[in-house]
Amino acid sequence: MTSSDKKAVGIIGASGYGGVQLVRLLLEHPEVEIAYLAGDSSAGKKFATLYPHLAHQVDLEIEKIDVDAIAKRCDLVFLGLPNGLACNIAPELIAKGCKVFDLSADYRFRDLETYTTWYQTERKDHSTAAEAVYGLPEIYRKQIEEASLVGCPGCYPTATMLALSPLLKQGLILPETIIIDAKSGTSGGGRQAKVNMLLAEADNSLGAYGVANHRHTPEIEQTCSDLARQEVTVQFTPHLIPMVRGILSTVYANLRDPGLVREDLLTIYSAFYRSSPFVKILPKGIYPQTKWAYGTNLCYIGIQVDARTGRVIVMSAIDNLMKGQASQAVQCMNLTMGWEETCGLPKLSFYP
Amino acid sequence: MTSSDKKAVGIIGASGYGGVQLVRLLLEHPEVEIAYLAGDSSAGKKFATLYPHLAHQVDLEIEKIDVDAIAKRCDLVFLGLPNGLACNIAPELIAKGCKVFDLSADYRFRDLETYTTWYQTERKDHSTAAEAVYGLPEIYRKQIEEASLVGCPGCYPTATMLALSPLLKQGLILPETIIIDAKSGTSGGGRQAKVNMLLAEADNSLGAYGVANHRHTPEIEQTCSDLARQEVTVQFTPHLIPMVRGILSTVYANLRDPGLVREDLLTIYSAFYRSSPFVKILPKGIYPQTKWAYGTNLCYIGIQVDARTGRVIVMSAIDNLMKGQASQAVQCMNLTMGWEETCGLPKLSFYP
Amino acid sequence: MTSSDKKAVGIIGASGYGGVQLVRLLLEHPEVEIAYLAGDSSAGKKFATLYPHLAHQVDLEIEKIDVDAIAKRCDLVFLGLPNGLACNIAPELIAKGCKVFDLSADYRFRDLETYTTWYQTERKDHSTAAEAVYGLPEIYRKQIEEASLVGCPGCYPTATMLALSPLLKQGLILPETIIIDAKSGTSGGGRQAKVNMLLAEADNSLGAYGVANHRHTPEIEQTCSDLARQEVTVQFTPHLIPMVRGILSTVYANLRDPGLVREDLLTIYSAFYRSSPFVKILPKGIYPQTKWAYGTNLCYIGIQVDARTGRVIVMSAIDNLMKGQASQAVQCMNLTMGWEETCGLPKLSFYP
Amino acid sequence: MTSSDKKAVGIIGASGYGGVQLVRLLLEHPEVEIAYLAGDSSAGKKFATLYPHLAHQVDLEIEKIDVDAIAKRCDLVFLGLPNGLACNIAPELIAKGCKVFDLSADYRFRDLETYTTWYQTERKDHSTAAEAVYGLPEIYRKQIEEASLVGCPGCYPTATMLALSPLLKQGLILPETIIIDAKSGTSGGGRQAKVNMLLAEADNSLGAYGVANHRHTPEIEQTCSDLARQEVTVQFTPHLIPMVRGILSTVYANLRDPGLVREDLLTIYSAFYRSSPFVKILPKGIYPQTKWAYGTNLCYIGIQVDARTGRVIVMSAIDNLMKGQASQAVQCMNLTMGWEETCGLPKLSFYP
Repeated sequence: MTSSDKKAVGIIGASGYGGVQLVRLLLEHPEVEIAYLAGDSSAGKKFATLYPHLAHQVDLEIEKIDVDAIAKRCDLVFLGLPNGLACNIAPELIAKGCKVFDLSADYRFRDLETYTTWYQTERKDHSTAAEAVYGLPEIYRKQIEEASLVGCPGCYPTATMLALSPLLKQGLILPETIIIDAKSGTSGGGRQAKVNMLLAEADNSLGAYGVANHRHTPEIEQTCSDLARQEVTVQFTPHLIPMVRGILSTVYANLRDPGLVREDLLTIYSAFYRSSPFVKILPKGIYPQTKWAYGTNLCYIGIQVDARTGRVIVMSAIDNLMKGQASQAVQCMNLTMGWEETCGLPKLSFYP
Repeated sequence: MTSSDKKAVGIIGASGYGGVQLVRLLLEHPEVEIAYLAGDSSAGKKFATLYPHLAHQVDLEIEKIDVDAIAKRCDLVFLGLPNGLACNIAPELIAKGCKVFDLSADYRFRDLETYTTWYQTERKDHSTAAEAVYGLPEIYRKQIEEASLVGCPGCYPTATMLALSPLLKQGLILPETIIIDAKSGTSGGGRQAKVNMLLAEADNSLGAYGVANHRHTPEIEQTCSDLARQEVTVQFTPHLIPMVRGILSTVYANLRDPGLVREDLLTIYSAFYRSSPFVKILPKGIYPQTKWAYGTNLCYIGIQVDARTGRVIVMSAIDNLMKGQASQAVQCMNLTMGWEETCGLPKLSFYP
Repeated sequence: MTSSDKKAVGIIGASGYGGVQLVRLLLEHPEVEIAYLAGDSSAGKKFATLYPHLAHQVDLEIEKIDVDAIAKRCDLVFLGLPNGLACNIAPELIAKGCKVFDLSADYRFRDLETYTTWYQTERKDHSTAAEAVYGLPEIYRKQIEEASLVGCPGCYPTATMLALSPLLKQGLILPETIIIDAKSGTSGGGRQAKVNMLLAEADNSLGAYGVANHRHTPEIEQTCSDLARQEVTVQFTPHLIPMVRGILSTVYANLRDPGLVREDLLTIYSAFYRSSPFVKILPKGIYPQTKWAYGTNLCYIGIQVDARTGRVIVMSAIDNLMKGQASQAVQCMNLTMGWEETCGLPKLSFYP
Repeated sequence: MTSSDKKAVGIIGASGYGGVQLVRLLLEHPEVEIAYLAGDSSAGKKFATLYPHLAHQVDLEIEKIDVDAIAKRCDLVFLGLPNGLACNIAPELIAKGCKVFDLSADYRFRDLETYTTWYQTERKDHSTAAEAVYGLPEIYRKQIEEASLVGCPGCYPTATMLALSPLLKQGLILPETIIIDAKSGTSGGGRQAKVNMLLAEADNSLGAYGVANHRHTPEIEQTCSDLARQEVTVQFTPHLIPMVRGILSTVYANLRDPGLVREDLLTIYSAFYRSSPFVKILPKGIYPQTKWAYGTNLCYIGIQVDARTGRVIVMSAIDNLMKGQASQAVQCMNLTMGWEETCGLPKLSFYP
């Protein structure tokens, strides 16, 4: 524990892109102090050898993942490990009194059968998983405030559900007509050396992947079903875009009431997100650019209705590493700790 | 006319991106010789002052748009002017014996009322428009062979219709469920100085535009209706991607027969495009990258079926300035002249 | 003036990239409040119509450039106008008691003859220009603290002088051997619609411009001469890089003492910049990436000595719109007001 | 051997970027037929599984590197292997009658001591190395015509020597003042998965590497020394640019005769390259863009003289994978075979 009044936080899996966002955010967060950086392959290295530009701000070494030591030194723990690892250490951390924010898929599913189907991994921590809360504050704020384990959402589900939630909650669309065409920068692939993610390959090109079988599908469907109070199946297609950061989710659905116009929806969305400081509904005719959200916890939403087809088209833009990952986890931390929801979270991007 | 056996071609509107593609392609085309470059604001300039890298290959001056002179010196004329100008000169060029390939929207519509509704321009050349053939060779090859006026398709309609045609022709989908989510590089905006097209603005960002009202919508609907033999209304959303060239069209539709599987569709598509040398159907699990089509007249098509939702998802990739514009016009020229369809058209991209 | 204890600031020329950086920075600066946004062509518009992503934070209208009104309502004024305009209004603003920070070239030259030679503009405000201080805090900190008019440096001179100053100050190099090969993102060209700055033209390409005659040359030479206490002439070549933000200046010079090694220089640089919180000297073998400085007021410096040639090579990286423009102006403001030099200035970039 | 009149070529190391360029170029070369594709880790795979976009043109499998089989089936062999491997098989291939074009560094050095110093590899094939000719046609055309082993130049040395050769050959500059500031797209790093080459890392950033110790330095010095007829030591600094393809080399040197003006140099360069169809000297005030050379074997050269400093600045732009690698090797093949030098080589880029 730190000597100050600040809470001690640990970041387990600190070497990846999620980790470096968390380090940056938590360095400037007024209520916490980084007490533990841990990694697997990077253990023993100075954090600054991985990210030399932060050397003047971070003089920490990456340590081994030692659950006892982490629990002893940390009040709050962020897990940024590959899928299937958090479930091995989260139960013990919670038992020892830590609050845990998991950035992997391990605690996103209430129903571990869904997890096992899509992630091909058997799990034994059913009771822990049952306690976990899905960390999308705009939908599950109350539950997050009470949680000691938060399963932080994937990047695509975050952008998508912020676009869809008011429609589903109010029963305005036919859920079976939902089509989600999502586009992400390549940082979503993580700091892994892969040929298809090389600048030489990915720049000035564009393609879809995981068509009809991307693992974020069941996550989207779980939240959709919650809101619609019925089983919802969606069409979800992610695309890789030649840019570093950012997600745009373009969502299509048929309106139940063909008389609904854009202005109605702008009103409904504004009301729905009235208490959500990070969601910005754009005025008519303005559609979001991913760059607007760069480096912030914001989500920008644009809405159009097509009277010719009876469909609504909603576009939402976020920074995939921020609202789509690290800063949303910090937002959840703020809620569980009773701090101001916006505490330490950037809300002004640089432009251009 | 040129002194050789080659046909004399004119490029009217030579200073834009369409123009420079045509210059490049026609320089290497074995059957033609460039006899006339014309422009409006660029008249009087050497072509090489606009494109210095071609100075060693093109020593032509851009001339005024003088219809008499063009008709006198050219057998074949490509019009690359802004919308609403081709219709002023095409009738006279045809009357004087030229074959005309118009890259603007002027001759894409059989029904000029549709044109007037979407382009807000009254037209008087109804009889000329009625003669024009829509220049998508994979669908209208026979008609193009007979045409003296070809209305070359827009870039989005080309990518989209190559993805959709087999489905509509065979009646495999419910036309009212068609959703087209298209993505284009910024060169589609032309060589016009616009703030939102600056690298500083458009790079590392992504957004939709023209949602529910883009002018390529009626063009897509016209061809869809032809193939489906019924009025078809589609949902079409274009997006601007931070890259120079390339279009990916991701098309969604509900299958009439939920028992249809991907292999069936691969077979149907391969058969449909058997005589189309520029359309490449990708094997299962391979989805097209726009970069593959760079600098070629090719269209790559990937297909997936989602048994969970009963939908087919088709992705097609082209180079927006080539198959989406200039090289497709050359393909049409080849057909009207009875030359080999592939004559002078690149079919091997550079990679990466 | 604002009703709070905060100082009232005006931003004249608020619509460009410099303006939007200033707005963003000053919104988060604890000691000031934005009291006046002004522009020429943009007067009468809401700032948020130009930058919709800031609508939730800025509800100001851009007003006309009315010197009286500005002076009445502002304590501190930032001028972000095209070259040759600041000199028309700065004298009056100063006379009325404002402190002025000019981002144009107007007040960068002690000797207005140099200005007139390179900028082809006659000037009458010689006495005002004589009072102005060159706003590079790492070299002229003391003078800036006393100044009421600061001529903020160009982006290239900032990066270059931070790389060169220790060498010149200590007399370690032969000044006539200085060669500066600089590289900038395209945002340096401003929010002006120019064909060569379009993404379609500038992306995936690279070229030099202004070779041997770029206007930042005399600015670099003025500071070099100050430090070397002799007239210095430099070779300066800027290049346009296909990226949005960032400058890398690669500087070459022959060492006077061929026995000097890299470690000596690392020591000398670290000492020179000991009291400069925004300059970071990198350890041996680490060379700066422009991205490290993105969105911050930092300058990263890497040093190498080539024993084979007797030269030192220094590389410095900054964000051209921040330390190269807007945030450096805020740093100057902090100094003139006696505030903490780092107040309100970002020092942690996002990565990647 | 092929049954036609065409010569049979083998590409050993076909899976990398050099390999895929060669495949593409040789498919369209009228005098040759691809008879053998070989690789190490990729042996046994269809070439089309590595590059699906070429599946319609290439139905070859990548075979093992079997020197006997290669020599039996091929007249001409391109080696695109990592440094230190070509020297193990080239001697035998030559002994069996093949002409060999090596794209690695193995046969670029007349003096193998230099090779060993910079590449840390002992070599035994001194007599083979002594026969090898450096494959820069613009300088060593006559020798290449007689060669059976060509050591093809590195990408940076190609761009740099085309910029420097006329100056050195005519004795116009002081060789000890040569500074080469070079910039390359990331495809120069090859199709290797490396973290620093990921789009997420390399895009929108810029940095130097290999400062004062890059392995292309001795290669540049060898050719400089040849031309200057004295030992020349140069300063060479490469930079990584956020783009796929292209190299710009900006070269600085002090003129011996300060009275020389740009027009003199334009004349000298034009004369020097009169018989070199791929080198284009740009008129005054025009500086090369790397994009102009994209996909071609061209080199564009721009020249400026700075009377203030007495220096000449030469900028040369090439496509690093073409003139900087694969198409230059084909140019060498054309010369050794007595074919037209330009045969099968693109000289028109796409733009933009």
